[in-house]
Amino acid sequence: MNRDMTPQQIAEATAKGMYERDHTAHALGMVVEAVAPGRARLTMTVRKDMVNGHDICHGGLIFTLADSAFAYACNSYNHVTVAQGATIEFLAPGKLGDVLTATGTERHVAGKTGVYDIEVANQDGKTIALFRGKSFRIRGHVVPGIPTIDA
Amino acid sequence: MNRDMTPQQIAEATAKGMYERDHTAHALGMVVEAVAPGRARLTMTVRKDMVNGHDICHGGLIFTLADSAFAYACNSYNHVTVAQGATIEFLAPGKLGDVLTATGTERHVAGKTGVYDIEVANQDGKTIALFRGKSFRIRGHVVPGIPTIDA
Amino acid sequence: MNRDMTPQQIAEATAKGMYERDHTAHALGMVVEAVAPGRARLTMTVRKDMVNGHDICHGGLIFTLADSAFAYACNSYNHVTVAQGATIEFLAPGKLGDVLTATGTERHVAGKTGVYDIEVANQDGKTIALFRGKSFRIRGHVVPGIPTIDA
Amino acid sequence: MNRDMTPQQIAEATAKGMYERDHTAHALGMVVEAVAPGRARLTMTVRKDMVNGHDICHGGLIFTLADSAFAYACNSYNHVTVAQGATIEFLAPGKLGDVLTATGTERHVAGKTGVYDIEVANQDGKTIALFRGKSFRIRGHVVPGIPTIDA
Repeated sequence: MNRDMTPQQIAEATAKGMYERDHTAHALGMVVEAVAPGRARLTMTVRKDMVNGHDICHGGLIFTLADSAFAYACNSYNHVTVAQGATIEFLAPGKLGDVLTATGTERHVAGKTGVYDIEVANQDGKTIALFRGKSFRIRGHVVPGIPTIDA
Repeated sequence: MNRDMTPQQIAEATAKGMYERDHTAHALGMVVEAVAPGRARLTMTVRKDMVNGHDICHGGLIFTLADSAFAYACNSYNHVTVAQGATIEFLAPGKLGDVLTATGTERHVAGKTGVYDIEVANQDGKTIALFRGKSFRIRGHVVPGIPTIDA
Repeated sequence: MNRDMTPQQIAEATAKGMYERDHTAHALGMVVEAVAPGRARLTMTVRKDMVNGHDICHGGLIFTLADSAFAYACNSYNHVTVAQGATIEFLAPGKLGDVLTATGTERHVAGKTGVYDIEVANQDGKTIALFRGKSFRIRGHVVPGIPTIDA
Repeated sequence: MNRDMTPQQIAEATAKGMYERDHTAHALGMVVEAVAPGRARLTMTVRKDMVNGHDICHGGLIFTLADSAFAYACNSYNHVTVAQGATIEFLAPGKLGDVLTATGTERHVAGKTGVYDIEVANQDGKTIALFRGKSFRIRGHVVPGIPTIDA
């Protein structure tokens, strides 16, 4: 095990390991743009199979993007961490062709639980959804063989 | 316009119209099993592109199924109705091959806003998620040419 | 220790112990009407110091009543259990003189965490708020010297 | 009517009018420390009648403080605005004697609905709760005879 990794290196290695096996992220064309301890930024372009007849993105897929940013942020310490629950407020529609960016930030971690805020914005910088996720750390490492960090 | 339609007939015609243009429902293999005024039941089978490396369904897709049951339930009066926001609690994982059923029930409608509870269960009847959605009625009919109902 | 207590007896003894030191319940005139394993029902009459200038009950106090029903329900196994968080939907106003009843029901318990639904209704049986609480079990017994139950 | 009032003057006059008839704020010793268009900051000292037997503040009263900051923030345009619902995450306990500060900020307003984030911190600056409120504007002015603003 490489004990000399920095928290940033651990966050990046963890995200890389998660992304390789994250079939949903691949199927929906999500890209992990950046990750850091307790933070992550993902993008997704709204495709035809993500919209309804009025070319409005399904709210569930906006949630899925936000939930993914949440997952990459809360797993960035290399402890396996799952979502207990989340809330989302839909502020404006996503539209066909929009490039959506979900930016996730840790608000609080204590013991096994945490709270993360994720904002979803479109390519014009307009916020279209506010997501708040509650995390719970379970046993195990996201990527074996690299260190973990206590948030 | 057929003014003699019953509320049940309106709910069914509205769901049919919505489903035809709901590309996400098709892409994710969702089936509208039943609809009634203020209620809907949808199913989705957890596929390989919906799971992570541990064959656990992405929480965002469980939300998407619940959000869809919510949408079919709150639009069943043929008034265009959107999600303002939602909360979800994840109780147990969905697994590769699971057949998930989301059952949506109206709890309250007053003026333009409503509250709907959706339970997601697996093929063993085990509840895996609890979703609560807040709806907002906007202008327009879901399916033109058929009546609307005031909930 | 009386090891022969039934779950119902434990729930009642726990509620009695909690209520004695629950200064807020006393200050707000809350009454624990019934308790059972995973369930509780409390009432509160809307007083002048609970309303605004239009004689509408402060939403925070409706929440406080619901949160109390949640607390009595989730502590009914005699394990000290705290609220991680909660959501509330306000459906209709509470008014001066109303007798509000909060009925709490356990929806799910797994390990240390649980989900409880609480409905608040007025004396006419009209639901005025829907509350969902997320619990977390910590160390300790609510009432020492009587058994605990694993939910 | 004084049409020359600035938004800040309107916010202050509205808060003053609300506070005079806000019996709950008085009963709980809340003080409106500051208000501005879309923002408010309130304090409350945790008294004996707000705690349980372990001198921990009732979560419902932390919610009530946050909900009040939300109310002063979302009514600051002098349009009567009510809470549709809210979520709260409890991060750390409030204790007997703590001076709690709830700071509310508008995140989004569109048409009749809005989203506000409120943080509750103690006298050491430690955040103890995160609250998110959803507002709905109804008819009427908070304080008659002074202008309203469209957020």
